[in-house]
Amino acid sequence: MTATFHSVDPRTGEKGRAFQEATTEGVGIAVAAAEAVHRAAVLGDVERRATLLDAAARRLRAAGDEIVAVAEAETGLPEARLKGELERTAGQLEAFAAVVRAGDHVEAIIDTPDPGAKPIPRPDVRRMLVPIGPVAVFGASNFPLAFSVAGGDTASALAAGCPVVVKGHPSHPGTGAVVARELQAAASEAGLPEGTFALLQAAGVEVGEALIDEPSIAAVGFTGSLGGGRALFDRAAARPHPIPVFAEMGSVNPIVVTEAALTARADEIAEGLAASVGTFGGQLCTKPGVVFVPAGAAGDAFTGAVGAKLAARDPEVLLNERLRDALAASVEALGELAQAVALPGEPAGPGFRFRPAAYAAAAADLVRSPALLDERFGPIVLLISYTDHDELLDAVARLEGQLTGTVHAGTGDDQLVSRLVALLTARAGRVLFDGFPTGVAVTHGMQHGGPYPATTAPGHTSVGMTALRRFQRPVAFQNAPDHVLPAELHDDNPRGIWRRVDGQFTREPLERG
Amino acid sequence: MTATFHSVDPRTGEKGRAFQEATTEGVGIAVAAAEAVHRAAVLGDVERRATLLDAAARRLRAAGDEIVAVAEAETGLPEARLKGELERTAGQLEAFAAVVRAGDHVEAIIDTPDPGAKPIPRPDVRRMLVPIGPVAVFGASNFPLAFSVAGGDTASALAAGCPVVVKGHPSHPGTGAVVARELQAAASEAGLPEGTFALLQAAGVEVGEALIDEPSIAAVGFTGSLGGGRALFDRAAARPHPIPVFAEMGSVNPIVVTEAALTARADEIAEGLAASVGTFGGQLCTKPGVVFVPAGAAGDAFTGAVGAKLAARDPEVLLNERLRDALAASVEALGELAQAVALPGEPAGPGFRFRPAAYAAAAADLVRSPALLDERFGPIVLLISYTDHDELLDAVARLEGQLTGTVHAGTGDDQLVSRLVALLTARAGRVLFDGFPTGVAVTHGMQHGGPYPATTAPGHTSVGMTALRRFQRPVAFQNAPDHVLPAELHDDNPRGIWRRVDGQFTREPLERG
Repeated sequence: MTATFHSVDPRTGEKGRAFQEATTEGVGIAVAAAEAVHRAAVLGDVERRATLLDAAARRLRAAGDEIVAVAEAETGLPEARLKGELERTAGQLEAFAAVVRAGDHVEAIIDTPDPGAKPIPRPDVRRMLVPIGPVAVFGASNFPLAFSVAGGDTASALAAGCPVVVKGHPSHPGTGAVVARELQAAASEAGLPEGTFALLQAAGVEVGEALIDEPSIAAVGFTGSLGGGRALFDRAAARPHPIPVFAEMGSVNPIVVTEAALTARADEIAEGLAASVGTFGGQLCTKPGVVFVPAGAAGDAFTGAVGAKLAARDPEVLLNERLRDALAASVEALGELAQAVALPGEPAGPGFRFRPAAYAAAAADLVRSPALLDERFGPIVLLISYTDHDELLDAVARLEGQLTGTVHAGTGDDQLVSRLVALLTARAGRVLFDGFPTGVAVTHGMQHGGPYPATTAPGHTSVGMTALRRFQRPVAFQNAPDHVLPAELHDDNPRGIWRRVDGQFTREPLERG
Repeated sequence: MTATFHSVDPRTGEKGRAFQEATTEGVGIAVAAAEAVHRAAVLGDVERRATLLDAAARRLRAAGDEIVAVAEAETGLPEARLKGELERTAGQLEAFAAVVRAGDHVEAIIDTPDPGAKPIPRPDVRRMLVPIGPVAVFGASNFPLAFSVAGGDTASALAAGCPVVVKGHPSHPGTGAVVARELQAAASEAGLPEGTFALLQAAGVEVGEALIDEPSIAAVGFTGSLGGGRALFDRAAARPHPIPVFAEMGSVNPIVVTEAALTARADEIAEGLAASVGTFGGQLCTKPGVVFVPAGAAGDAFTGAVGAKLAARDPEVLLNERLRDALAASVEALGELAQAVALPGEPAGPGFRFRPAAYAAAAADLVRSPALLDERFGPIVLLISYTDHDELLDAVARLEGQLTGTVHAGTGDDQLVSRLVALLTARAGRVLFDGFPTGVAVTHGMQHGGPYPATTAPGHTSVGMTALRRFQRPVAFQNAPDHVLPAELHDDNPRGIWRRVDGQFTREPLERG
């Protein structure tokens, strides 16, 4: 007898379709197929990989109406958001296809030989990045498309040349199934075998644990909670052969608002902040959870305005019952440490709705209540008042690793801003000015990561084109005959890529002496 | 009362000078000083960092006679080797200084804004790599200079802009003390504070454990045994805030010799192999430990020749008593599984000497004796005979992660070589042709790393210029005013570095629209 689980419509709490649970045997089969694809190096063909990514983008767009409808019923996210997320997901796949075609992502380096080098002769050394091996991806609940089955981790792993086995998030199994169907069709269209990509659906943790334990899995991508990410990290670190885990686990994304910023544009900031906190149920890894505001009349007015704007919003649909219950518990705990600005945040039916809310506390409270700086995943923000710059800087210095840190400043703040930027740069993967951290643009240089607990891998990003660096490893070939070298390292540079030759960047062919 | 430990001359087994053990309190003081240097960003000044590295190189060379004399008495390594290693260490420091001055190591990326981008507007995003924070370095016993106090990990961490706290290897405390003295003088010369670099000396494990546990330590570099590296990795992974551990833990560095290679140059290969195995007591991470040779007359003759050459060597001095005892135990175990070719390997006085030796087994034995493929750190090699290509490929496929893999082939071997290269590329960080893996050249593209158990971080290297990437993390600045940006990201590109602007590599200044 096979076990099943159901999707649930979070807008109503009603059960939807039943889905078959993957078995641990199924995990083994999927990983063996992925390993076979890796061994055969069929993803080594750059053009085929790019074709796969482009075809996946085209197919997702073509199936857009179906995908958005299923995702809406499984996540409660609004249609416009899901359409935007679908476009982001497709655009991301295409952007990685372009990167793979350009070919520079292998970071080729060639050192020509020097028999007279001291203390030892220098051989011919040619180094490039190669695929790390089969990658396990754990989809997030809050981005059913962009951080899920065909999301950033999958796209960057495939772009890197790695087969992917996804453990889908049980909050949106129907969405995952449709996306997986299209991704598999894209693989087939590109002439790639089935083992290139697989989706495992399961409500419990056993399937994910079995996936992490598979000896052939070479790396893990994850987006989700601190608890979930840390559990995967610990399990991967305890393997006989540990593997890297790239877990993005959220943060409180602090925002600092200065007195001068309030003087210049308090209403605009309050409006933007309330939207950034409340939209999509505040269920974004980059939702601002803590905002530092000056104590006094202007700050109090600002805090009151943010609270009023959030209280005036309709209750937001949360993604599932578990998130709703977790948020209710953490907001109840917050109520012991801080004041609700207007109405308190609380569950509200039908379905898994929750009332957005702002809370207020003083920076001085952080000493005895460090839990004020904990993440609350949902439409809740804590405004912390500071009496002077020293108190502000001390509070910011208490922050742990963050995905983002934002400064809203104004005239005369230059010295304060320099100090804030130093503190935030040391703690966050992205430092923003006069904006809001939600709405992460997928660009070459975007950084979505940060020191622990934001991620388990501070040296990397899960958004932006450098995300594929996570799934590559360097290999150097020493004194290799040209015919055994990958094309990227041939003398004549047939792919026309940028290479560092004897220390200098060039796209020219190599002239052997 | 402070505890002390003694250096020991491995050539005689006699005790040398006494050294004071660092205390766990001393660990805290050193790390606090390093953290203060990191916070003040004094290493952010690129020219000062380069000056430090250059000054360290110059000072090490100037103190060369003293350093080599102390190191000789503590390691038993020959003077010529230590002189070469000193030059390599100094050259490495200078090479990193040049990389830092060139400035491209920050991997700058600039995405210009596009208000019309879909699905969301694209902000101005500027990303670069910044120092990860204070780095703990664990020196190796076998390279008292190049992989120790001022070795590759220290040089690359300082180059990355990170203060360093070294836990010196207790096998060469006097060498470490002299090198640390020069490095500290170089820091002072460069106008850098004391916390830039510290050396902690200790014979036990407590000091290293305390170092790993320090919350301000952001990353760990290690070169040594699998047991030691794994213990550090496990401890770092269990921290409340886990940190990356870049542990290089050695390997068996397989070499494949084909029938055609033997036909062409059996004597030359045997000569090179015996030297690669026997020199410096075989105590190199890249020492070839396993060599696959064809079964039959040519292979047997080759195996016999290698065994005879090794047996004819004088006993080699091992670095310390612990290594000697560990090697004696593993060679005794090997004797149960394989045949000594000429004389068996065994301890030989005075001091911690050991007789070099070759052992022989058949590829068919690997099925029931996988331990044949274990590393034996010392002047011992195992020659494994294969009866045909399938048996060879099957044997190579059994290998775990390796630092290196080498192919000695000849005319007509192209197809076999392709298959070997695919297998070795999947398992090793460096693939060599017609050479020997010992003697690692420090170049831009050198790769010294590999999948576990060769290292705990397959995506990185501990030798070569990209080694500094381990100690950096990306930060993106979004819509930042030019004056808060690091120079590397200014519009006018004042450092003249290569940057990826809207996807294209360029050294040109940015023209804002």
